[in-house]
Amino acid sequence: MHKQILTTPLGDTYPIMTGSGILDSIGEMLAEIVKPCRAMILTDSNVAPLYLERAAKSLEKAGFTVTSKTVPAGEESKSMGTLAEVLEAFCEAHLTRTDLAVALGGGVIGDLTGFASGCYLRGIRFAQIPTTLLAAVDASVGGKTAVNLEHGKNLAGMFHQPVAVICDTKTMKTLTPHELADGAAEAIKTGILGDPDLFAVFETGNAAEQLQEIVMRSVAYKAKIVSEDPNEHGVRKLLNLGHTPAHAIELLSDFGISHGHAVAMGMGIMTRAAAKRGLLSDADAKRILDTLTRNSLPVDAPYSAADMARIAALDKKAAANDITVILPEKIGNCRMEKIPLSALEALFADGTEETV
Amino acid sequence: MHKQILTTPLGDTYPIMTGSGILDSIGEMLAEIVKPCRAMILTDSNVAPLYLERAAKSLEKAGFTVTSKTVPAGEESKSMGTLAEVLEAFCEAHLTRTDLAVALGGGVIGDLTGFASGCYLRGIRFAQIPTTLLAAVDASVGGKTAVNLEHGKNLAGMFHQPVAVICDTKTMKTLTPHELADGAAEAIKTGILGDPDLFAVFETGNAAEQLQEIVMRSVAYKAKIVSEDPNEHGVRKLLNLGHTPAHAIELLSDFGISHGHAVAMGMGIMTRAAAKRGLLSDADAKRILDTLTRNSLPVDAPYSAADMARIAALDKKAAANDITVILPEKIGNCRMEKIPLSALEALFADGTEETV
Repeated sequence: MHKQILTTPLGDTYPIMTGSGILDSIGEMLAEIVKPCRAMILTDSNVAPLYLERAAKSLEKAGFTVTSKTVPAGEESKSMGTLAEVLEAFCEAHLTRTDLAVALGGGVIGDLTGFASGCYLRGIRFAQIPTTLLAAVDASVGGKTAVNLEHGKNLAGMFHQPVAVICDTKTMKTLTPHELADGAAEAIKTGILGDPDLFAVFETGNAAEQLQEIVMRSVAYKAKIVSEDPNEHGVRKLLNLGHTPAHAIELLSDFGISHGHAVAMGMGIMTRAAAKRGLLSDADAKRILDTLTRNSLPVDAPYSAADMARIAALDKKAAANDITVILPEKIGNCRMEKIPLSALEALFADGTEETV
Repeated sequence: MHKQILTTPLGDTYPIMTGSGILDSIGEMLAEIVKPCRAMILTDSNVAPLYLERAAKSLEKAGFTVTSKTVPAGEESKSMGTLAEVLEAFCEAHLTRTDLAVALGGGVIGDLTGFASGCYLRGIRFAQIPTTLLAAVDASVGGKTAVNLEHGKNLAGMFHQPVAVICDTKTMKTLTPHELADGAAEAIKTGILGDPDLFAVFETGNAAEQLQEIVMRSVAYKAKIVSEDPNEHGVRKLLNLGHTPAHAIELLSDFGISHGHAVAMGMGIMTRAAAKRGLLSDADAKRILDTLTRNSLPVDAPYSAADMARIAALDKKAAANDITVILPEKIGNCRMEKIPLSALEALFADGTEETV
């Protein structure tokens, strides 16, 4: 088991534990951080049959009084309606300000549990137990929580840091290749942003056999960025590489295209745009595109630059008339650039041409 | 126009402006604090016909681009369903992270707007324009936001400080005597907690003619407490004088009893309980009860101590087995006491006896 510590400038400190088979130890791990109390596990209909009983048993053995709520698997559960349901379930379980919510599942469960625990009684503690590669390398660390609105993804939420992130890489053995690729997209993103060795795992290594290294390296980079900028006023925006087109793609596909796949398409767009504008060498651009492809990820979006730009202008990262976009400069380094919303379509158009 | 400044330890600083007839100047006042941007006014069906147009005109004149949303008047609008509606309305108005929400109304509107703006895009700015005495002296200052859940009042919310509070005491001329009494209850509470001169306004003065003084004194006390303890870990709990029984009373009455009236009943209970236990002189207890009565407020609850204690145990201020209650020691000073939940019924029973 590997342990990393994240400290935010506001003083929130929490451990991120990664290991194979540690699901059965979450109770004792959490008992070291929070005095055993009422714990409500939130999970979804895919994860519950696989891991709920083991998680509950471990918590009970460590002295927690456990209840659980299972919501339907899928993005539809990341809604205001399900949030309200979860909050009522917290009431029914008589959770008080000193009790604990436990997110057992992927990004939807983590985001939903984080938001619910962040606003229930104006804030109770929660732990993240990500069971997907995507949640482990991305959503579970950093304290961003959200639900979707009718108008788009992640439009309502808050910053609420977990008390611990516990990632059992063995739970990822039950993921489909498509789900693994979703996680790979965010880890490759991290490689492009600041970790060439992590990028190399996907470029030449065997990712499926190196999950623990992938999670640890991804978490280390994200923890560093989040520590410096928990509320995304500065460097944390880097983590949005590929995400401005990705959010538009997800919305345009009515969420038929999953987050990681949309991020891969978005990175494809930003990579080609950066190359076309002379910010990134053609050789590095080709390596990025090839590595995404090698990991079963798409690099082209099925939508026009105009459509993506129109939707992206509604993104919450847009200020009144500007948006910050992230452009790769080499593998291991990206830059932030604030551009007028009106320049977004031309940027996306550059990124959808076959320039490399 | 009188201006007070509130600074929280986290560095949030905002002005609280009180004056007669200043509704027509909110635009220029807010333009000094936020660069003119999109502004969405949230209000209710009672307030809209009275003050919406004037508020919108003032904002437009100062350069803001104004839209508005009106929700039905009443506690029912303080719900997860209405919160979702408001968030979608923010999307429709294309509010971005640099835009502004404006709460024009009483406590329901302030709490709802505060929560919505606190979680929309993970937080945009908002301004409080309280139009009731209750909202002016209580809810608009301090950054507590919330909606009710099926299981009880204010069970979901967050801390989100406004960028300004602007209180036009002239808008209170349209309040009913019952609504004025609601506000008086919270102001009398402040007098009991720490401002004997404010208490005297209600004991011997003419409250209806002294609204500006009442608001300024209430705000000054609340700002001091909130500055010291924005997240209610310590002294801010004092502000809950009377509120533990009050929340139970509101819930038991299915919100047929209004907040201020329930707080008055709650203060009646805590006053008699404190006197019975020898913490408060009979003379001061009588002065409190008489002053509440003089201001058309009830001091007896129509529920049994057992019923109130049962509901209060579900209050969000209860930890697993304890609850902090506030007991008056004299007019101008109260104490916090942590008691086991099991002792609550006996305390309420002491407070419902005719001991004074």
